[in-house]
Amino acid sequence: MTRTALIEQIRSKKSFLCVGLDTDLSKIPAHLLETEDPIFEFNKAIIDATKDFCVAYKPNNAFYECYGVKGWESLQKTVDYIPENCFVIADAKRGDIGNTSKYYAQTFFETLGCDAVTVAPYMGEDSVTPFLEYPDKWVIVLALTSNAGALDFQFTTDAKGEELYKKVLKKTAQWGTPENTMFVVGATRAEGIGEVRKLVPDHFFLVPGVGAQGGSLEDVANYGWNDDCGLLVNSSRGIIYASNGIDFAQKARTEAQKIQLQMEHILKEKGFIG
Amino acid sequence: MTRTALIEQIRSKKSFLCVGLDTDLSKIPAHLLETEDPIFEFNKAIIDATKDFCVAYKPNNAFYECYGVKGWESLQKTVDYIPENCFVIADAKRGDIGNTSKYYAQTFFETLGCDAVTVAPYMGEDSVTPFLEYPDKWVIVLALTSNAGALDFQFTTDAKGEELYKKVLKKTAQWGTPENTMFVVGATRAEGIGEVRKLVPDHFFLVPGVGAQGGSLEDVANYGWNDDCGLLVNSSRGIIYASNGIDFAQKARTEAQKIQLQMEHILKEKGFIG
Repeated sequence: MTRTALIEQIRSKKSFLCVGLDTDLSKIPAHLLETEDPIFEFNKAIIDATKDFCVAYKPNNAFYECYGVKGWESLQKTVDYIPENCFVIADAKRGDIGNTSKYYAQTFFETLGCDAVTVAPYMGEDSVTPFLEYPDKWVIVLALTSNAGALDFQFTTDAKGEELYKKVLKKTAQWGTPENTMFVVGATRAEGIGEVRKLVPDHFFLVPGVGAQGGSLEDVANYGWNDDCGLLVNSSRGIIYASNGIDFAQKARTEAQKIQLQMEHILKEKGFIG
Repeated sequence: MTRTALIEQIRSKKSFLCVGLDTDLSKIPAHLLETEDPIFEFNKAIIDATKDFCVAYKPNNAFYECYGVKGWESLQKTVDYIPENCFVIADAKRGDIGNTSKYYAQTFFETLGCDAVTVAPYMGEDSVTPFLEYPDKWVIVLALTSNAGALDFQFTTDAKGEELYKKVLKKTAQWGTPENTMFVVGATRAEGIGEVRKLVPDHFFLVPGVGAQGGSLEDVANYGWNDDCGLLVNSSRGIIYASNGIDFAQKARTEAQKIQLQMEHILKEKGFIG
């Protein structure tokens, strides 16, 4: 999906919500466990229930890989089921030497057919650039993550006082363009989002950490907004596990709509939609 | 596999060779492409041919994932086929928030049944520690990688002049022990191996980059050796693609044996074996 198409979707759905499909057999409703592919059945129902309120879906690979071959089947079926007008992010956090990263690019863009994949920057340029060779596909580089461990290395300052996450942003922004590169910026560090926005004014951010991890949507919008919205805000557990009963899809729909309405309010306030 | 068992294998096989199973359909012998699972058939033949000369195998996940479900089937069959006395490393370079990393630990240690998995350190402590909760399983943290992109961030110095890769070593070494943590240290940076050895005298290193990437085994042994050997040196392309004809397994055996003999020489020189 192109940047223009993504922005059109945000305008048309009045939403910049990404629904995280962190589907865990121990958390989904019991009645689904009797079906042949409970993960896919759950995802299908969640996608049907939420697709009017979000512009993106983000399956996190770990939740599928832990079931091995069967998990990858569920993942492939899920990606295939997501409607054309939704942006699909493989939250896989890959990154290897250039010769190997090109196989990961093939995995996520050709085999699975996702629009974007998250990538860890530690191995540098040749670990990221193979993903940039696919037209209309995206790399989403980890910059400032939402977890406690982000403090271990991402805030390490160099001799000039510059934090590692800023160096990552400045360097990786040069490898691609705002048409094929986004950054992961955690909602739990709202002031950090503002710092990131100063360095990369034009890029989209994928923002995890709203909801279960404690980040606030208002803060994210205040600190991260740009002229094209520039934000995809993810919510996983708060939506998909809103209920673990027979009404799980309906409750997920309600939660997704609640966030969409907050987003619509923000989009109007910013003058992005009428 | 425990550290003691690994060291016993090194003594008994007179080798610290790890064979990298970076199996690529475009590089394997044409006659295998007619079989039902060419990747597994290739790996099977390579394992049979080399198992006397190596102590570890390292399938790199990218080469399997790019074939989707079918690739994971080949990977699972390959891991299942590797003999009990060999250490199995999933070269997957994972790393996510703690809640998610635990699913990756499950993937590689329970579902696939590997002994170790490579992990990227960018997301910090909670992205690494879930892997340390499995007895006799290992996390292999990227410290100093063999690729050109290593220069982008790993050598960033802080206010005291300390490089990022050293900070990564010092911090991550505290999260685990030399019984469950190793480090990736690229053979292409021999002087770096010496620096790393000073910081973590007791840990094993997984050393890629000998052979196709240009690193020297002698240098690796000179700079990286410790009292328990402390080295697993990987070779992928140089062994598995020694020939792409009908004789591929025999040629792989010859190449593996060649390296094993060099290693035997080193192990004797160091007084590790009689």
